[in-house]
Amino acid sequence: MTDAPQPVPARPAAPTPAELVGRTVAIIGGTGDQGRGLGRRWADAGLRVLIGSRTADRARDAADRLRTEHGVEAGHGTNDKVAAAADLVLLAVPYAGHADIAAAIAPHVAGKVVIDCVNPLGFDKQGAFALTVPAGSAAQEAAALMPDATVVAAFHHVSAVLLLDPTVAQVATDVMVLGDDRAATDLVQAMAAAIPGMRGIYAGRLRNAHQVEALTANLISVNRRYKAHAGLRVTDV
Amino acid sequence: MTDAPQPVPARPAAPTPAELVGRTVAIIGGTGDQGRGLGRRWADAGLRVLIGSRTADRARDAADRLRTEHGVEAGHGTNDKVAAAADLVLLAVPYAGHADIAAAIAPHVAGKVVIDCVNPLGFDKQGAFALTVPAGSAAQEAAALMPDATVVAAFHHVSAVLLLDPTVAQVATDVMVLGDDRAATDLVQAMAAAIPGMRGIYAGRLRNAHQVEALTANLISVNRRYKAHAGLRVTDV
Repeated sequence: MTDAPQPVPARPAAPTPAELVGRTVAIIGGTGDQGRGLGRRWADAGLRVLIGSRTADRARDAADRLRTEHGVEAGHGTNDKVAAAADLVLLAVPYAGHADIAAAIAPHVAGKVVIDCVNPLGFDKQGAFALTVPAGSAAQEAAALMPDATVVAAFHHVSAVLLLDPTVAQVATDVMVLGDDRAATDLVQAMAAAIPGMRGIYAGRLRNAHQVEALTANLISVNRRYKAHAGLRVTDV
Repeated sequence: MTDAPQPVPARPAAPTPAELVGRTVAIIGGTGDQGRGLGRRWADAGLRVLIGSRTADRARDAADRLRTEHGVEAGHGTNDKVAAAADLVLLAVPYAGHADIAAAIAPHVAGKVVIDCVNPLGFDKQGAFALTVPAGSAAQEAAALMPDATVVAAFHHVSAVLLLDPTVAQVATDVMVLGDDRAATDLVQAMAAAIPGMRGIYAGRLRNAHQVEALTANLISVNRRYKAHAGLRVTDV
């Protein structure tokens, strides 16, 4: 018997979707569960993943966890450095830091697709509720602060617990993908499809992102009532 | 060959869920597709259905259509008369008439459960978008206007096309049910479960109804893109 971490079994490499071959994705806020979980799954799918954080040390620690806990390799660095080095950027920060970080990385994301998965929620003793966002939604706020990037809203409803669970091979959920640029939403749909069990479903323009972000409050209520890690499937598609 | 309407084949009566035995549901705005479609399915499930409209003539016409097109019997009358005669009330009116009709039926719904399925949406050349509702949501607006009723928000995402399609035996979708009273949300979950293929899933308090109503705009975008009648399933429940 030993307390040493168990070795992570080698997995067969998943085939990388054609649109994503050779792509590098930077995960801004990659030390959080949602960012680390998506990073793990995308690394599994053959993308190059860079974990970003406010400090280089924390980014390195998160990349170390991905290697020791999930057997995947990821680069790491400060948020602005990984944003500058990537083709694609995922913004996965708490809403409290969202505007500051979006403004800070703006110079490094010109011409790139930025995926915003941030849910502006408040919590009180009755549970979660949607915050009012002056720009309409976190995604629209990001688009205003990063005018030279193409912002796509997606991955709001994916359970970080399932993404990080080593026993979960298929994350059986659909990802609503919202944006105003067809090539960008197509690309982000492929990012969803790269994760086994997931589909990316186009679900409208950025002006309709608010309710998709806010719906996470409802899924939190579902999780409480049913002791679940709820997600959504879109039927008839 | 004849152009006469085909006779509707007799269907075996579905067993009525225990909570719903002997219940009468009034459908306010029962001349619209959503109300008529739910009325058809609930009548199939063994509930007594009353179709309401602003005028008695239009209510009778809608009840006639239910009989000739779907082979189900429904009572009919003006909105206030059917609300007064029912145990349960479904508010299925266009948002433009929502506040006026809620105020008008308020004297007739004291002590009753009122289900609000109204989606406050606007439309322009880019498609559907969520309207701002001063009360927060249509459901909260209804609750404020009918203080002696118990308002539950549900049935926003159910396709009227599928509800009314005679070839569709199972409406394979989940219904998010929101409210602040457990007995009332339990009852409305049973109203969903009474329709084959459907489940009622508790999805939070009324303060989180806005995003569920608004999400219908996203499903309209899904329907356009995929030529679908999209609905939602909640996973892991």
